[in-house]
Amino acid sequence: MRHDYPIQAVSFTKVQLADNFWLPRLKTNHDVTIPASFQRCEATQRVKNFEMAAARTGKFATIFPFDDTDIYKTIEGASYSLQLYPDEKLAAYIDALIAKVGKAQEPDGYLYTARTIDPAHPHPWAGPERWVNEREMSHELYNAGHLYEAAVAHYEATGQKSLLTIALKNADLVCAVFGPGKRHVAPGHEIVEMGLVKLYRVTGKPEYLSTAKFFIEERGQYKGYDPKSPDVFKNGAYWQDDQPVYAQTEAKGHAVRAEYLYSAMADVAALTGDQRMLAAVDTIWHNMVGKKMYVQGGTGAVPGGERFGANYELPNTTAYNETCASVANVYWNQRMFLLHGDSKYVDVLEKILYNGLISGVGLDGKSFFYSNAMQIKSSAGFPQTEPARAGWFDCSCCPTNLARLMPALPGYVYAQKDRDVYANLFISGTTDLTVAQKAVRITQQHNYPWQGELKFTVSPAVATNFNLLVRLPGWARNEALPLGLYQFATPSNQKISIRVNGQSVAYATRNGYAVLARKWRKNDVVEVALPLEVRQVVAHANVQDNLGKVALQRGPVMYCAEWKDNGGRASNIIVPAATRFATAYQPNVLNGIMQLTATVPVVQVDAANSTVSTTRQTMTAIPYYAWANRGKGEMTVWFPQQLTDVDLISRKAPESTVSK
Amino acid sequence: MRHDYPIQAVSFTKVQLADNFWLPRLKTNHDVTIPASFQRCEATQRVKNFEMAAARTGKFATIFPFDDTDIYKTIEGASYSLQLYPDEKLAAYIDALIAKVGKAQEPDGYLYTARTIDPAHPHPWAGPERWVNEREMSHELYNAGHLYEAAVAHYEATGQKSLLTIALKNADLVCAVFGPGKRHVAPGHEIVEMGLVKLYRVTGKPEYLSTAKFFIEERGQYKGYDPKSPDVFKNGAYWQDDQPVYAQTEAKGHAVRAEYLYSAMADVAALTGDQRMLAAVDTIWHNMVGKKMYVQGGTGAVPGGERFGANYELPNTTAYNETCASVANVYWNQRMFLLHGDSKYVDVLEKILYNGLISGVGLDGKSFFYSNAMQIKSSAGFPQTEPARAGWFDCSCCPTNLARLMPALPGYVYAQKDRDVYANLFISGTTDLTVAQKAVRITQQHNYPWQGELKFTVSPAVATNFNLLVRLPGWARNEALPLGLYQFATPSNQKISIRVNGQSVAYATRNGYAVLARKWRKNDVVEVALPLEVRQVVAHANVQDNLGKVALQRGPVMYCAEWKDNGGRASNIIVPAATRFATAYQPNVLNGIMQLTATVPVVQVDAANSTVSTTRQTMTAIPYYAWANRGKGEMTVWFPQQLTDVDLISRKAPESTVSK
Repeated sequence: MRHDYPIQAVSFTKVQLADNFWLPRLKTNHDVTIPASFQRCEATQRVKNFEMAAARTGKFATIFPFDDTDIYKTIEGASYSLQLYPDEKLAAYIDALIAKVGKAQEPDGYLYTARTIDPAHPHPWAGPERWVNEREMSHELYNAGHLYEAAVAHYEATGQKSLLTIALKNADLVCAVFGPGKRHVAPGHEIVEMGLVKLYRVTGKPEYLSTAKFFIEERGQYKGYDPKSPDVFKNGAYWQDDQPVYAQTEAKGHAVRAEYLYSAMADVAALTGDQRMLAAVDTIWHNMVGKKMYVQGGTGAVPGGERFGANYELPNTTAYNETCASVANVYWNQRMFLLHGDSKYVDVLEKILYNGLISGVGLDGKSFFYSNAMQIKSSAGFPQTEPARAGWFDCSCCPTNLARLMPALPGYVYAQKDRDVYANLFISGTTDLTVAQKAVRITQQHNYPWQGELKFTVSPAVATNFNLLVRLPGWARNEALPLGLYQFATPSNQKISIRVNGQSVAYATRNGYAVLARKWRKNDVVEVALPLEVRQVVAHANVQDNLGKVALQRGPVMYCAEWKDNGGRASNIIVPAATRFATAYQPNVLNGIMQLTATVPVVQVDAANSTVSTTRQTMTAIPYYAWANRGKGEMTVWFPQQLTDVDLISRKAPESTVSK
Repeated sequence: MRHDYPIQAVSFTKVQLADNFWLPRLKTNHDVTIPASFQRCEATQRVKNFEMAAARTGKFATIFPFDDTDIYKTIEGASYSLQLYPDEKLAAYIDALIAKVGKAQEPDGYLYTARTIDPAHPHPWAGPERWVNEREMSHELYNAGHLYEAAVAHYEATGQKSLLTIALKNADLVCAVFGPGKRHVAPGHEIVEMGLVKLYRVTGKPEYLSTAKFFIEERGQYKGYDPKSPDVFKNGAYWQDDQPVYAQTEAKGHAVRAEYLYSAMADVAALTGDQRMLAAVDTIWHNMVGKKMYVQGGTGAVPGGERFGANYELPNTTAYNETCASVANVYWNQRMFLLHGDSKYVDVLEKILYNGLISGVGLDGKSFFYSNAMQIKSSAGFPQTEPARAGWFDCSCCPTNLARLMPALPGYVYAQKDRDVYANLFISGTTDLTVAQKAVRITQQHNYPWQGELKFTVSPAVATNFNLLVRLPGWARNEALPLGLYQFATPSNQKISIRVNGQSVAYATRNGYAVLARKWRKNDVVEVALPLEVRQVVAHANVQDNLGKVALQRGPVMYCAEWKDNGGRASNIIVPAATRFATAYQPNVLNGIMQLTATVPVVQVDAANSTVSTTRQTMTAIPYYAWANRGKGEMTVWFPQQLTDVDLISRKAPESTVSK
């Protein structure tokens, strides 16, 4: 029996978006982010590295041996994007770039410019021989993994095999070199495992799947670590290499590497039916969602090592929350959904999408956050994550990861298992499916996430029996996040209502979905009303930083207060339990947002009399994803409910003048 | 010409302490700390490692390959301590231990239990062959360095050559293996350089000095780093290996390693006359004192990597301040003084001694801080250094480093250059010197640091012309620290006065010393009065965390407010510029301290009315070194001068109950 995911995502090639929220973002990604990424790959000589590798001469021109991947990732993003926005010039550019990649490949398939340019003098991280530094430094298999991801996207989007051929040649080499009885290593930065699985899906070649599984099972085998050391570099946890994956129970180490590994574990569990691997990845997912995720969907609390902290270690002012980790976590949660068919995974995915992921890119499409702060205090000293966006980084993983995820979004909207059609994301547009051999078109038309009234038009070519499973978002069922790390302090009394062709319907629920089972006919209309009140969120009492504090959520969108709207401050705002918020759509603010306002106590300091008191003032909150687009200043996600204590701070020069 | 330090310290063997402040601490070190260290070396199987290495069988029983050094360091401390407290039982124990060390040594001198126990299966950090992992992991030369330090101390204290013979055999091997045309490496954790210099002093063998210089000059030669990386592990700065030492200008990387290196640079500069090395270590010292030192003398601001931060990066709540770095910084500043004869180096040394060094050990002599916090806030989440002392650590470098420094203190009191006798530290006791071939006894009798009236009795056997140079502490001359990182906001108007045999004398000053030049006769009495007011200290305006804040200093002692004396809090205290402190010696508090009290504004929160106001209250401050001996709670060194702003915090469960 051939195993696979029980549920299949509806391909991005079958979904056309027409969404007020997302389509402008995807257009900006196409018009600005992707061209800027390619331009920067040229300007920083990432492209030149390939040209020099082709000529086998020169000197590696950039900083990191994994700089090759920025080109792969941008090709991947551009490939998806061409589906949305056909663009001959871009297609031709990609073709030329792929030709350069092909010429840089060695005859046996090896592709890694950091060595091929001058094999006698490779990049110091590359090691003197192929693969010898792979565990910690070389990223040879990391580059391979991104090549495979890009190749499959390019093939699926364009039907062309140019990049795929290069990738398969490389993958055949990797499978020949690594495996039982051959070379062993736990790849230092995971992604080759996911990439191999994608190649397996395209080709059906079993070696790709078995080598992916081999790499996953190599983790925890290296004996050179010190298991007693608390240092994640010395005990191997940084690379998820401290234990065999079957013994791993916590999301640990570098968050991006971790979530790429967990994604691949889900892939391999699905495609091999390995129940132990399934159990392991389930356990780790519960740990991540239950104990290690920020309220805006970010992961990786600790800046040193860009990694997961201890359970409930989710401090605000030092939060790391790498944008790449949000990308990786989308991949992982999508796979968990495809395995289990439970809406909770999509709840997490949606939480990341609307919040901690897109906070990583500015509204201009070309300024980025590598880390995503939870709080900026003007009073705070070191350490504090950067309050302003940057154009590009020496290590530019995050911009190019956004460039590839954003245009892939159409592939996350629907999924299908036989006669079950899952509507996971509420994004206006049209998809064309085949259900029970019948063509079915489904159209979404609404103004989500600002409005909760969803409209689905279900149009089978001929009347057809099937189940439309509409996700009932956790937040609409008074569950702020699965597993209780966050809960609503102000739950809604409203219920979700569903009407079909104007008539309220009773519906069964299954795994967090409304199951609408009927013989669907042309132009059937499903209307779903989700309660969209502003709700106050509280964190689990073990999250020290958030004791006595609330965050603000409306629908899937988390809010923050930013200095710009609040008299130059944000850290002085109190949000008592009884606070009620007014909402107003502001089309001209931050490309159009639903804004929240309320009258709340705000702390004022009277330095002359050494007193602090609260005055009532209007506070304005904006979606978290939109912060840091109007200059630098304070930003807060979590607000104290009352003034229970203060920390004294002083930002004035001392009173007594000191002679210098 | 043979080069050397222009000034020589008066050996610890020639100074008998009788000091109210230090002698009880040295006795506790002898009675509690050293026995506890040996006991823990036995209980944790550090001793067993040597026994197994002697038998060439078994399995390395502890965690780190550098665990051997805890034995060396405790032998070193015990050797010094035997001078103070003759103890036959302890001497016999040390002899037996040295015999075990000798048996663990391989025939060619190699001594490293992590390999010798089972050379086919060495500790993973040790590497498959000798020395191959020395740059980053093995600590083979680190173990060697501590062996040499211990051997010289043991030889000088007891006259016995048992450990010295072992050390010399090892050093001969090291010199045979490493050097120009032989094996090259920048030792991963410096100290072998200092140790080799000590062996050179004892033996005069030039290879020891040249090999020390070789190791120092090896830094910055390795090509495998990425100089563009901001990561101190990837660019080599963690190991001070990013640049040749002659190009280094900043105190960088792991603070203990750094300060051991800088100590050795001073040694080699003195003993070779190398002016370039002298210039480099001078430059780095200016950077450390001018931009990277906490007000209590601690160094190494950043927990990740236990390392120096950027210039002026001296945050309070996350301060690392490893106790070992204070030990290393004492070594370094003593050497800088011996090179230059300037009191500013002793000012820094004294600052460390009375504050950030002895804060590392509890009054019980057996509980320790690895890192020394600057502020504990009950409101703070992660990260915050540990507010309670621990008995021992897996990596026990700090306890054993204290055990070896404390009893060496007599060697830091005096120094001499021909007819110049330097009185550097004000510690009661007696020393016997030879000046111009005449015996001279100097006795100090006073109650420093609590009282500023110092009394020196100078008794030459026969009347003799020489200069007594009494250090005029920077703090007594209104200089809080050399180079202006800290300054007094409330300078003293009092002057230092000096009387000889009851008569005020005019005196010349030289490099921060009062030069008392006369023909000294038996029982001449010098009385020095130092102004001991409580002074407010401000930090350089670039130290973000301390803007508008003051610290409290009296004499060399820095103060803090601890929860225990201040109604359970410390972070709510304001110290306005006009605050005047009362002082009272409390013999029964914390083994006897001078306590400070003042009436100051203290912030009170009225949660019901959401107001914060200041009330006047008595604040009590205790010496910083004495904190954390009465349980866990808030502690603050820096106090806001006025209420210019507050950070809202909340430690209450939210008002609205959430159903679980």
